[in-house]
Amino acid sequence: MLPDRTSEFRLIEWFRAAISASPRVLTGIGDDTAVVERPNGPVLLAADMLLEGVHFDLASSTPFQVGRKSLGVNLSDVAAMAGQPRYALVSLALSRRLSHEEQTRFSQQLFKGLHSMSTQFDTIIVGGDTTSWDGPVVINVAVAGEVPTGAAVTRSGAEPGDWIFVTGSLGGSIEGHHLDFIPRVHEALALRAACNLHAMIDISDGLVADLYHIAEESDVGACLDETAIPISKAAASIHDDRSSLEHALGDGEDFELLFTVSPHDGQRLLASNPLQIPLSRIGEIVAGDSCRLRDSSGTETPLPRLGWSHLVG
Amino acid sequence: MLPDRTSEFRLIEWFRAAISASPRVLTGIGDDTAVVERPNGPVLLAADMLLEGVHFDLASSTPFQVGRKSLGVNLSDVAAMAGQPRYALVSLALSRRLSHEEQTRFSQQLFKGLHSMSTQFDTIIVGGDTTSWDGPVVINVAVAGEVPTGAAVTRSGAEPGDWIFVTGSLGGSIEGHHLDFIPRVHEALALRAACNLHAMIDISDGLVADLYHIAEESDVGACLDETAIPISKAAASIHDDRSSLEHALGDGEDFELLFTVSPHDGQRLLASNPLQIPLSRIGEIVAGDSCRLRDSSGTETPLPRLGWSHLVG
Repeated sequence: MLPDRTSEFRLIEWFRAAISASPRVLTGIGDDTAVVERPNGPVLLAADMLLEGVHFDLASSTPFQVGRKSLGVNLSDVAAMAGQPRYALVSLALSRRLSHEEQTRFSQQLFKGLHSMSTQFDTIIVGGDTTSWDGPVVINVAVAGEVPTGAAVTRSGAEPGDWIFVTGSLGGSIEGHHLDFIPRVHEALALRAACNLHAMIDISDGLVADLYHIAEESDVGACLDETAIPISKAAASIHDDRSSLEHALGDGEDFELLFTVSPHDGQRLLASNPLQIPLSRIGEIVAGDSCRLRDSSGTETPLPRLGWSHLVG
Repeated sequence: MLPDRTSEFRLIEWFRAAISASPRVLTGIGDDTAVVERPNGPVLLAADMLLEGVHFDLASSTPFQVGRKSLGVNLSDVAAMAGQPRYALVSLALSRRLSHEEQTRFSQQLFKGLHSMSTQFDTIIVGGDTTSWDGPVVINVAVAGEVPTGAAVTRSGAEPGDWIFVTGSLGGSIEGHHLDFIPRVHEALALRAACNLHAMIDISDGLVADLYHIAEESDVGACLDETAIPISKAAASIHDDRSSLEHALGDGEDFELLFTVSPHDGQRLLASNPLQIPLSRIGEIVAGDSCRLRDSSGTETPLPRLGWSHLVG
């Protein structure tokens, strides 16, 4: 089942409007992380709640994988701001469906997953909360990260003429990638060092949905080249009523980086990819407010706001 | 139903042992908040997850109250470290039991509660996560706070001879206080300015249970004076199989401050209470590892580790 993302977005807009701006908050609700002012550089703050049966399923994923994912989605948010994650808080509601022994085994495996992800990205789990109830398992992870003053990359800096890039390949995350993805923390830092990133987001809702986030926050439009979209093997191997391209455009939880740079920086990135993973130029930012797809003949069609594709069957 | 706090504590101990010490973490898992090193002073980090049917009940509390409580419990944790809360992240899982309209109304009221608590204590809600599912409502709040270098008050600094103090009055929180308590942020800062706080905790599990947390982390024992325990009107008005004193000793969610200071500082606090609320000297820290209760005749009896009293019927 799909959560109603439309009503969620409305709610977030309502929250956003209800909170008065503060000079202490450089970037508030509505980006990948908040950016708050601190004497020696900004702090990035983000949180994500994963619900059993919505974001993971214990029949098709191990507690270790769920642990890695629950921290990984937050590290991906910090990466999307070009920041370095530092600390994590883990809140866990265990399910009393399980015996005490099973709960202990479950949470130890979950914690091992969290711990393996945290050490991989130099992030320390410093605290949190554990409880148990009759409901399904709930995990919330909150992270704090760092970024030099002025270096956080928001969704709002895209400019007409910018080239649009994406890391890795897209689509079909439901086949397994949503559980074993590597948050692009190292790649984001390498990109920050290599060029001037104008806008960036991690692909969690889907390429087109997240492109719209950049477009709206930056007051611009975008045009994607159909033939340039990097389609994952998983997306190519799915045989259903949607094409591989549609999977790459619409599927959620790729956790790749989508970003825009000047054509000058774009040419440098194409000439010498600073990453160990593929980097694709997939289109450009344009004036206006519409996102379009250009086919190989040059014909442009409007891109519908493809939804977030739910992962648990 | 009581969550099994014993197995929770075991789990926390396991997590704590599994995480290697880092010089970046001044205080890790096992205190009211984590204290992490930052160039211009430490940052306090804490999170609490509230579950419908466990920590609140929508039949007996309004969404506004639940919103205030969900942030308030975290502010209370920051107060217990003598810190100033600054930023909050709110993760919310709405229940699809409610219609979209009801969900919107619910979350707006919840948010108004969060917002009223946040502005009262100069804390800004900077982000979070919203989703919906078929399960009960889940709210996680994570906070970041500030404290000058060296000024965070942990649970581990109590010394034999210290006087034990508590703010306000205790017990019977289930009668309403658990929903309308005021986190003792201002009081903690006033105490920090007035004296040298050796150890401090906020009373969430219950006076005796939280006294044991201080005793164990500080490697000391404690002796409480039965006649000095400030019993709340709510505790005095409950007529069940437990005495008012037992309610004051055992009931959870008072959210008052329990702290220890030197006798010299204790005398100064008694001579001139720096707070706008009552302050009671309730006993002293002793060598050893047992916590005892002294009656008016001077007879001491061991204090059983009274459990956390569950609030939702």
